[in-house]
Amino acid sequence: MGEHIEQQFREYLQEMDAYREAISLIHWDLRTKIPKKGVEQRSKVVGLFAQKLHDMQTSDVMKHFIDSLKDKNTDPIIKKAVAECEEIYLRNKKIPKDEYKEFVTLQSKSEAIWQEAREKDDFSLFQPYLEKIVQFNQKFASYWGYEDHIYDALLHNYEPGVTTRLLDEVFSSLRQSLSEILKKINESKNKPDTSIVKSHFPKESQKAFTVDILKEIGYDFEAGRLDETIHPFEITLNRNDVRITTRYDENDFQMAVFGTIHEMGHALYEQHIDATLAGTPLATGTSMGIHESQSLFWENYIGRSLSFWKKYYPLFQSYAPKHFQSVPLEDFYRAINKVTPSLIRIEADEVTYPFHIMVRFELEKGLINGDIAVKDLPGLWNEKMEEYLGIRVPTDLEGVLQDIHWAGGDFGYFPSYALGLLYGAQFYHRLGEEVNINNAIEEGNFQPIIQWLERHIYRYGKMKKPLEILQDVTKEGLNPDYFIAYLREKYSKIY
Amino acid sequence: MGEHIEQQFREYLQEMDAYREAISLIHWDLRTKIPKKGVEQRSKVVGLFAQKLHDMQTSDVMKHFIDSLKDKNTDPIIKKAVAECEEIYLRNKKIPKDEYKEFVTLQSKSEAIWQEAREKDDFSLFQPYLEKIVQFNQKFASYWGYEDHIYDALLHNYEPGVTTRLLDEVFSSLRQSLSEILKKINESKNKPDTSIVKSHFPKESQKAFTVDILKEIGYDFEAGRLDETIHPFEITLNRNDVRITTRYDENDFQMAVFGTIHEMGHALYEQHIDATLAGTPLATGTSMGIHESQSLFWENYIGRSLSFWKKYYPLFQSYAPKHFQSVPLEDFYRAINKVTPSLIRIEADEVTYPFHIMVRFELEKGLINGDIAVKDLPGLWNEKMEEYLGIRVPTDLEGVLQDIHWAGGDFGYFPSYALGLLYGAQFYHRLGEEVNINNAIEEGNFQPIIQWLERHIYRYGKMKKPLEILQDVTKEGLNPDYFIAYLREKYSKIY
Repeated sequence: MGEHIEQQFREYLQEMDAYREAISLIHWDLRTKIPKKGVEQRSKVVGLFAQKLHDMQTSDVMKHFIDSLKDKNTDPIIKKAVAECEEIYLRNKKIPKDEYKEFVTLQSKSEAIWQEAREKDDFSLFQPYLEKIVQFNQKFASYWGYEDHIYDALLHNYEPGVTTRLLDEVFSSLRQSLSEILKKINESKNKPDTSIVKSHFPKESQKAFTVDILKEIGYDFEAGRLDETIHPFEITLNRNDVRITTRYDENDFQMAVFGTIHEMGHALYEQHIDATLAGTPLATGTSMGIHESQSLFWENYIGRSLSFWKKYYPLFQSYAPKHFQSVPLEDFYRAINKVTPSLIRIEADEVTYPFHIMVRFELEKGLINGDIAVKDLPGLWNEKMEEYLGIRVPTDLEGVLQDIHWAGGDFGYFPSYALGLLYGAQFYHRLGEEVNINNAIEEGNFQPIIQWLERHIYRYGKMKKPLEILQDVTKEGLNPDYFIAYLREKYSKIY
Repeated sequence: MGEHIEQQFREYLQEMDAYREAISLIHWDLRTKIPKKGVEQRSKVVGLFAQKLHDMQTSDVMKHFIDSLKDKNTDPIIKKAVAECEEIYLRNKKIPKDEYKEFVTLQSKSEAIWQEAREKDDFSLFQPYLEKIVQFNQKFASYWGYEDHIYDALLHNYEPGVTTRLLDEVFSSLRQSLSEILKKINESKNKPDTSIVKSHFPKESQKAFTVDILKEIGYDFEAGRLDETIHPFEITLNRNDVRITTRYDENDFQMAVFGTIHEMGHALYEQHIDATLAGTPLATGTSMGIHESQSLFWENYIGRSLSFWKKYYPLFQSYAPKHFQSVPLEDFYRAINKVTPSLIRIEADEVTYPFHIMVRFELEKGLINGDIAVKDLPGLWNEKMEEYLGIRVPTDLEGVLQDIHWAGGDFGYFPSYALGLLYGAQFYHRLGEEVNINNAIEEGNFQPIIQWLERHIYRYGKMKKPLEILQDVTKEGLNPDYFIAYLREKYSKIY
């Protein structure tokens, strides 16, 4: 009987997973291939499937599975799957149906209004919607509950185990060290010449180089594909079909080259999750932060390293415009690692990036606990940007209106990006104790690195929580020192 | 209450349609984009959705809708939708569940075995599977019932209203006239020189020309797209997302050019079905034969006409290899309309094509009514090919093993291809009474043609049965004389 219900539960999960897979395919198609006029009807289809999935997550049948299997002596995968399902069940059930519906409608309206506000560079259009979104998030947080800080309830959705208190501590230490590093960089007389990397680089050549690099590293094109989009992303259909997208800027190859390596980092994670987890909600990256640690690991720690370009600069030159023939490796390496305070988060370098997150974290926290009013947001944004990065924000379009997250109702998401940098540095340090990373890269042999990541991180999927993985791999908790040490070493040589 | 249940019925249909749309997207992706290793899991997902759709079609809820709405004074769309749903309901319900399951398993096994039999050119491998498939089709036909000939029950699935008796008559008259035409062509001393159209034609140039032509005709790329596949097809996701695919042979541009126009013909039909039918099972072409009449209409009656090339030969030459500059229009036109008896159905010209169908029709009919044993099929196939087309079949691979239809369990499907040619000629003749077709083509103004087809055929979807459309448009029934007259006129000039 016990085995019987486990079998039924597995089949139920597989059906949920089929909806998830179909929804993912529809999203991929919506962003890469669909003809314009087909979108309206397809959006209804994806809405229906999302509803089906939500219904299955919150059904009485699901409740019965949870009650029957929880605390039973089942195999570890069932155990974790039940826990994951229970968390989703409770999270959804705690919100009254009507409020949830209202919130979903608000989300899509609000994204459209945010778009309009951007076009007109007018925050006041967006303000009333954002006020409602903040209210909903406050209500939801109170339904979900928290021990210490109301914002913890939201953080939990993206980075379970990470609290407001922990982030306050970490960001405060980070802020100080980063400011010192940035000060040195700003004062350096030995700045990289970035003009050398700007030249017209035809899309097809960029693509050919990028595909070569993906193959060199080990992205499996028989279990994925690369397409073009405006906003690059990775999407998992199943573990043998993990797709990535990129964008080509013919005036700046860095967009496509580093963007693709970034998405490939996400994809390697998903492609290497253990096959036994397939068809369960555990078969995906354990958190936004750990996921980002992998994309950033490959983009920054590997893709922007000197070793990487020692190996691949000749290949790059064979695809690149002629003038790169006369750009020495060292100059090239320095140019692709230039550091400059800038307005836009997604274009920021690895030194200034955390400041962009701190600005958002502090504003989110204040909005959710009621210390900050939405109407004061643009002013506070600009003040913080000046304080942290020393730059003036000329328009809200390049300021508070730049990210879609708040318009989409997502609060508590941003910190994961910074956590990705910190986790990444901790993993990189630990990896370096077992593998000669630079040797491996310079030989173009990435297998020892991928295998290490698979063994310690990838294969677990959601079998371990983010801080559990961190602890098991590094034998310590969140520690920004590794990131700071990495930056210090790297940039003292570049600047 | 009456309106209430109609509303519920519509919502139920919309949900069914959402599954259909998702299944179509998955099929499109499976054939055009999916990475190899992703196929296994995706096949399970599509299987689950097909089951869901089947369950909805045969559920007690559906039975309740049918019973409540049938013979009620509802609006015409609901009326037709109920009739369509009832037909599907009964067709499925009449087959015992276990037998259906067994048949589905047999289908996929049998397709794999057919593939193997082709690779080894060994019909005997396929024989036992085909025997079972024939038995299933006989049983199903007896469950579904028929008045005159057991094969009628199978024809009904693809071409409702068309009977074995009608096909016997029509094919017999067609056979005689076509033989005469073919004899004259074979005896002609004035044969087109086809060597002039064979030369290396780069894929990208073929593609650019083909896309231009699609746009010229009026295929809406904002409601569709063109991709590459091994086996070209049209697939409808929704009426605003109707995709086509093609294949490029760099040594024969005709494959892509005429193949794409063919699939575009299917797509124009689907794109122009009335919007009020969307979300119901009526929002698709009414039958295989009418659908094929549209693809062949555009491919042959328009795409291979002299008028078409008068208009577009200069454009073609601008994309084509240089040597076409010295090929006169008239020679080009004759070369793309050459007639030769050949082994492979899908490569046949419009004169010999019906013979390929007659061979299959006669064999199918005999298999289903028990006159022919599967083991005798290869011999009978070869005899008939020699009798009708005067050619010897060297291997079963180029003979009885060439089509997937029987392996997939489809009996009664082949006649629709020939019906498409006949319907097409009847529509073309009728259109010619209202529109100066050649003028329109030579001006590159296809709107009068599309509008006529939309008004008389496209917009109805499944609101009318195939022979009903034929009767309403042409004021007569199936009549092969128009097709024969068209061929006589066209080919007496070419040969």
